[in-house]
Amino acid sequence: MAKPVLTVGVAGGTGSGKSTLARRIAQAFAPGCLLICHDDYYISHDELPYEERARLNYDHPSALDTALLIRHLDALRAGRPVEVPVYDFSRHLRAAQCRRVEPADLVLVEGMLILESEPLRSRLDLKLFVDTDDDIRFIRRLERDVNSRGRDMDSVIAQYLATVKPMHERFVYPSRRWADLIVPEGGYNEAALSIIIGSIRQRLAQIPSPVHGEE
Amino acid sequence: MAKPVLTVGVAGGTGSGKSTLARRIAQAFAPGCLLICHDDYYISHDELPYEERARLNYDHPSALDTALLIRHLDALRAGRPVEVPVYDFSRHLRAAQCRRVEPADLVLVEGMLILESEPLRSRLDLKLFVDTDDDIRFIRRLERDVNSRGRDMDSVIAQYLATVKPMHERFVYPSRRWADLIVPEGGYNEAALSIIIGSIRQRLAQIPSPVHGEE
Repeated sequence: MAKPVLTVGVAGGTGSGKSTLARRIAQAFAPGCLLICHDDYYISHDELPYEERARLNYDHPSALDTALLIRHLDALRAGRPVEVPVYDFSRHLRAAQCRRVEPADLVLVEGMLILESEPLRSRLDLKLFVDTDDDIRFIRRLERDVNSRGRDMDSVIAQYLATVKPMHERFVYPSRRWADLIVPEGGYNEAALSIIIGSIRQRLAQIPSPVHGEE
Repeated sequence: MAKPVLTVGVAGGTGSGKSTLARRIAQAFAPGCLLICHDDYYISHDELPYEERARLNYDHPSALDTALLIRHLDALRAGRPVEVPVYDFSRHLRAAQCRRVEPADLVLVEGMLILESEPLRSRLDLKLFVDTDDDIRFIRRLERDVNSRGRDMDSVIAQYLATVKPMHERFVYPSRRWADLIVPEGGYNEAALSIIIGSIRQRLAQIPSPVHGEE
């Protein structure tokens, strides 16, 4: 019998601070913790030239291979390792290699749309949504894309208005109703972080250790 | 030296489920827990006739004697009992008698506007905001006022549109940014309740017991 696994989902809009929150939770439970990003499961459109791939709507749920992520979660919960895809954001393509990931006591799943999918969220033992003001989220995205990803301001604004914002309003923001808790201001909300870490620690302590020979 | 007291605030709009959440937290820690409602601190307008009192804006922060609540919180934290006013909602007047309240390890403060006041929220060790859809909140308020308070539908709607909704949008809803955690759907969110109770229990366990003779 596989050891029970605790699954925690961290959702929220672009720039909300969800990745920071997920990373800080992961750090608190390293090395017994695994962090999986929904973004790694973008569907690869090898059949399209780069220019067309760059124009795709990456903020719609159909852009992601959520079914594969769900199969991976089920495998991890059953104690089996999985091959997580690696996505190359500069080329908008899935990389040839995957990364092999071993099961862990705590599996964190992070992504804008993880609460939007019913079969995905039903597999999460704790569901968090990070809620941050829209203007702050845009500013963070703009700074990140311009400073770290070499994008120009105009293209960031155009993409934001064309797909990021409408998809946020249609899919991401409404999905916060599925959250157990909403975390204002994401990764730097120390009070929330401490409550969440305390709660996860308590639940992990309640998970019985596996009995050898029961496989 | 007084024993340290943990203070927890539960805010949220009318009908959000904040009272239910506060009551359920209080039940988990009874009898070592005290629940104080901001509503009990409505300012009494004895100088006005009933008809005028009924027309006052009870949803504006100035309708409440928050300074008195703050003095009471400080007294409780210093280990002293307080005389909490009793408000008579049917007459829109403070009652002649107060209720004497003894200090407790855990003091819960519940009210729409408790996060709106900086000096009040700065005295809260844990700040919660209950977030529930506006239509659901209105329906709950309508049912409560018609079924339990003998109000008629038209007057409930008129008051809601005249003061409750505008004050909610101006003071209550924006104050959620001061919360450590936002609880979707209030008192019946079992996952959130269990996390909050666990966190309070952990913090109470960390409070050192008072040493006799140190007064």
